[in-house]
Amino acid sequence: MIYRMNLVLLFPEDFIAPTRARITGRRLEAIARIGSDAVRVGVMNGRCGIGKVVAPGELEVQLDGDPPPPLPLTLVLALPRPKVMNRVIAGATSMGIKRIFLINAWRVEKSYWKSPRISDDSIRTQCILGLEQARDTVMPVVELRRFFRPFVEDELSAIAEDSLALVAHPGASSECPRDVKQLVTLVVGPEGGFIAEEIASLERIGFRAVSFGPRILRVETAVAALVGRLF
Amino acid sequence: MIYRMNLVLLFPEDFIAPTRARITGRRLEAIARIGSDAVRVGVMNGRCGIGKVVAPGELEVQLDGDPPPPLPLTLVLALPRPKVMNRVIAGATSMGIKRIFLINAWRVEKSYWKSPRISDDSIRTQCILGLEQARDTVMPVVELRRFFRPFVEDELSAIAEDSLALVAHPGASSECPRDVKQLVTLVVGPEGGFIAEEIASLERIGFRAVSFGPRILRVETAVAALVGRLF
Repeated sequence: MIYRMNLVLLFPEDFIAPTRARITGRRLEAIARIGSDAVRVGVMNGRCGIGKVVAPGELEVQLDGDPPPPLPLTLVLALPRPKVMNRVIAGATSMGIKRIFLINAWRVEKSYWKSPRISDDSIRTQCILGLEQARDTVMPVVELRRFFRPFVEDELSAIAEDSLALVAHPGASSECPRDVKQLVTLVVGPEGGFIAEEIASLERIGFRAVSFGPRILRVETAVAALVGRLF
Repeated sequence: MIYRMNLVLLFPEDFIAPTRARITGRRLEAIARIGSDAVRVGVMNGRCGIGKVVAPGELEVQLDGDPPPPLPLTLVLALPRPKVMNRVIAGATSMGIKRIFLINAWRVEKSYWKSPRISDDSIRTQCILGLEQARDTVMPVVELRRFFRPFVEDELSAIAEDSLALVAHPGASSECPRDVKQLVTLVVGPEGGFIAEEIASLERIGFRAVSFGPRILRVETAVAALVGRLF
């Protein structure tokens, strides 16, 4: 199966000289597959440009561009099923989301919290795939919150400060707004949705429940559709 | 791994009496997992309602609702990689898309056309998963078109008639429109995009190239985001 690497992401430890990077493994294979002598590169949390292949696995790097702008959205997501976790993180990253909280909710199964997919390494790998996909370099910050109530009551107000605070809720009477020109904090529930008490907790701190129509969507579809709607 | 079945889809052959259906296999397992004595049901291409479990694998069915409205969008999609094919079809179906053309393009690898994922059975299975997800009953029509030029030159004008005809193209200068109140025919290219000649062919028959921003998204993310933007 061919995997397209739209951007070769470089890390400080790849550099053997200020403009020369040495790469191995999957990035080297991806370059070999592209079969070109120049590839798009970006430095982790830095600039973008072109890498010219000057020797096997060696790139002469010229950085003259910025990564695409971030999406002005903080995503608070009930921890998804391990099976969809990877796609959700890579997809959210590819859309430019830079801050993600994975939280507990009544309908999140306890076992999900034991999945290897929520290890730092696994999440980091998915973030990197999302950055490569979208030719971005700026790593999102993904944080886990194992307890719903303390997160919502003690922390979420500050996170959502100065932003449009929305919770996606299929039953909500008001529609998800369009083309907003401000920061958004978007809360997305688990499969099966938030329970009424959770929606009430969120509304108490200023979140508005909004709907995207009568259809129940998978979390990765819902997040992408909501982002498309909002911005 | 738990799979949530939001709707149990019933087929004519399941009915052993006008309001009584007998189910087996994955649907029966899903009902057992839900552990409730009533489940949401829908009849393929028909109405929705409640199925009361009256015996193991037997439902007394009351149909009193309609499926959610379809999305007024025809999707013309360059055949995706087999690996993402399932997600794309199930995702598009869950959003309510009822007509999908899978077409060839310069950057579609020939081998994709030999994948078992494009068999009628495989596509039908993914459509059913998408319907169950979104509590819909109306099966989409998915058609394959192995040759780009004859499809675009001889067929696509008629398909797109009376609709807003758009081709998603990351390089386009005009932005994807928002909140359109009309039928849309949306063409989405392969990974790596359409080549200039393909965009020109589409523009010649009245399609407008529109962009969703500088980020290159995976096809399933792009389709969901574009749907969110358009409607």
